[in-house]
Amino acid sequence: MKVALLGFGTVGKGAAGIIDQGRDKDTAGLEIVRILKRTPADDPRITLDYQDIEACDVELVAECMGGLEPAHTYVRKALEAGRHVVTANKKMLAEHYMELAELAKEKNVRLLFEATAGGGIPWMAALRRVRRIDDVESFRGILNGTTNYILSAMTDEGLDFGEMLKKAQELGYAEADPTDDIDGYDVRYKTVLSAVAAFDAAVRPATVPALGIRHISAADIAWGKENNRIVKLIAAGEKKDGRLSLYVMPQFLHDSDVMARIGKNFNGVEAVSTTLGPSTYIGQGAGSLPTGHAMVQDMLTIAKGEEVTAYEASAAEVDNSGVEKCFYIRTARPEVFAAVRAENAGADAFVTKRMGLNDLLALIEKAADPELFAAVVAD
Amino acid sequence: MKVALLGFGTVGKGAAGIIDQGRDKDTAGLEIVRILKRTPADDPRITLDYQDIEACDVELVAECMGGLEPAHTYVRKALEAGRHVVTANKKMLAEHYMELAELAKEKNVRLLFEATAGGGIPWMAALRRVRRIDDVESFRGILNGTTNYILSAMTDEGLDFGEMLKKAQELGYAEADPTDDIDGYDVRYKTVLSAVAAFDAAVRPATVPALGIRHISAADIAWGKENNRIVKLIAAGEKKDGRLSLYVMPQFLHDSDVMARIGKNFNGVEAVSTTLGPSTYIGQGAGSLPTGHAMVQDMLTIAKGEEVTAYEASAAEVDNSGVEKCFYIRTARPEVFAAVRAENAGADAFVTKRMGLNDLLALIEKAADPELFAAVVAD
Repeated sequence: MKVALLGFGTVGKGAAGIIDQGRDKDTAGLEIVRILKRTPADDPRITLDYQDIEACDVELVAECMGGLEPAHTYVRKALEAGRHVVTANKKMLAEHYMELAELAKEKNVRLLFEATAGGGIPWMAALRRVRRIDDVESFRGILNGTTNYILSAMTDEGLDFGEMLKKAQELGYAEADPTDDIDGYDVRYKTVLSAVAAFDAAVRPATVPALGIRHISAADIAWGKENNRIVKLIAAGEKKDGRLSLYVMPQFLHDSDVMARIGKNFNGVEAVSTTLGPSTYIGQGAGSLPTGHAMVQDMLTIAKGEEVTAYEASAAEVDNSGVEKCFYIRTARPEVFAAVRAENAGADAFVTKRMGLNDLLALIEKAADPELFAAVVAD
Repeated sequence: MKVALLGFGTVGKGAAGIIDQGRDKDTAGLEIVRILKRTPADDPRITLDYQDIEACDVELVAECMGGLEPAHTYVRKALEAGRHVVTANKKMLAEHYMELAELAKEKNVRLLFEATAGGGIPWMAALRRVRRIDDVESFRGILNGTTNYILSAMTDEGLDFGEMLKKAQELGYAEADPTDDIDGYDVRYKTVLSAVAAFDAAVRPATVPALGIRHISAADIAWGKENNRIVKLIAAGEKKDGRLSLYVMPQFLHDSDVMARIGKNFNGVEAVSTTLGPSTYIGQGAGSLPTGHAMVQDMLTIAKGEEVTAYEASAAEVDNSGVEKCFYIRTARPEVFAAVRAENAGADAFVTKRMGLNDLLALIEKAADPELFAAVVAD
């Protein structure tokens, strides 16, 4: 199957390399004939002009440009032209899922997105497979390698957040502007797309509460240790009693929980389903070859004409009204939380009594403390 | 697709229940029309006579009787009759893999075995998928829930092996005769079938060295703790420099290794492949529904006519001559190991210098100490 590649950065180069060198594998059935790039390069397949992509003879367009535009427009055009689309662009797809999925359905082509969450982990494929038999009841996972690198290193080495962020930036694990990673927005897009794959539910990203790790301190990590807990930034989703809960928050996991032990910059994600119970998938959550591998797997699924279970998502609303937890809070405005405070947790921190997530979010908004750190204390 | 089920124990009941109740899932395309059982039961599909299975109109036979015979004969007959076969019978398949695979190829039918290793973990499916793109370089895993339950509890609660085995038997995790589990034979069969799926290599089970956990003591666990290590019974396979290494042994893993943290009776297994690097899969390694789920997944793969990458295995020989490790040994015959002893590890135990696995196995045979405990000290 002939493929056009949109974007030739880290992921695009990984995917192209895998296909160009995979002559003795199933990948032999794929050929990249055109590559859209922003700056000239030596490869004769490269063009700077999207018109060349539109004009070329391909059945499949693989998009890994990143960003909302022009990626969104190009993906729309590809679908409108009756081309299958594979994308690694979590932000664009999470923002426009229903529109693009409906267009793909109308044109009877595929829209696959394995590479949007978990890098090389076959997370979307695992959900599709499990749903041939089971309903997915819930998922939770570590879906951002940058923050997992920072949290793992803070836990292992006792360093402070600022030092670790700097180190992660030096190693290339964190962007110069790390907002998307450390404030949980990157995980939010991945949570939205996981909900599509797990529950056939497409929600607007902005409606998924996302609290990040920007204000975590060595004292918070230390409190976890004293209580046999390890903190991770967790994407959580559940469908229960007709309610779809989705949220992104740091969680103090029990140290006996294998997810608490997923270290370095690795990702890991767990689905709980009807007959399989919990199943967990761990691997490289980013990087040229793992993420390229995920894109190429989608291309193969399309090229082989494999039936794909699910992804007939409908627009859905987030409803976290059933989520009740104990929370860990560190804030300079503890008085706002006086009614829910249960026990002290060091100098400026405390653990709440069991309460609703929505109630907590309302109190956090009321406190308006820009330095506040909040985390779930896992059951 | 119409299916006949051979065996109606724990796994068979799980698979039948999933299909009988799965009317709104992909499983709606499957129908169990006949079930072979040893004792009468109420279900009108049940027969005690294999002739009824031969006579019935099915395209697929699913075998979960266990044991070598008559399972082997029945599977042969099914393949000879041009029926696809799905089996959960690790021992039978590991002993007869090449014979049955060649017969399946000759008859142009499928022989799938997801349920033989890792229970509900999609281990064989993960290997098939990754091999669409990658070569698998190595695998390692915890593939026996009984021994993992015992080792996890010894680690967490400090109990001795005998007490834990008794508790595991009371809970139904261990058989009355636990030999297959605790001496590593069960894992050996699973290692053989993992090598088929990972490397296209079919070896005779008896040629895979298997050392179990029968003689592990609380002192061994304690040595691990002092050295930040946790012991697990590990199936290991690697293809390197033209050599296929396969062995089953306890390993003292670093406590930072996520595999060391797979607790209770869970299983977990990791593949390392060309572009994906390490990918790990964790889940229920046994049980009626998870293992039944695995069997039904194979049935669906066949019913959907999906292309299955790999499994064109050839007969192969185990060659552990490239495996060099440090080993932990506890024995009443330390003098046999004098030349390789590197440092003491408590009263009767020591760690060897780095040495070949084959050399170690020769010394163990020479020592002829029925109480000897040996484990890899992971790099």
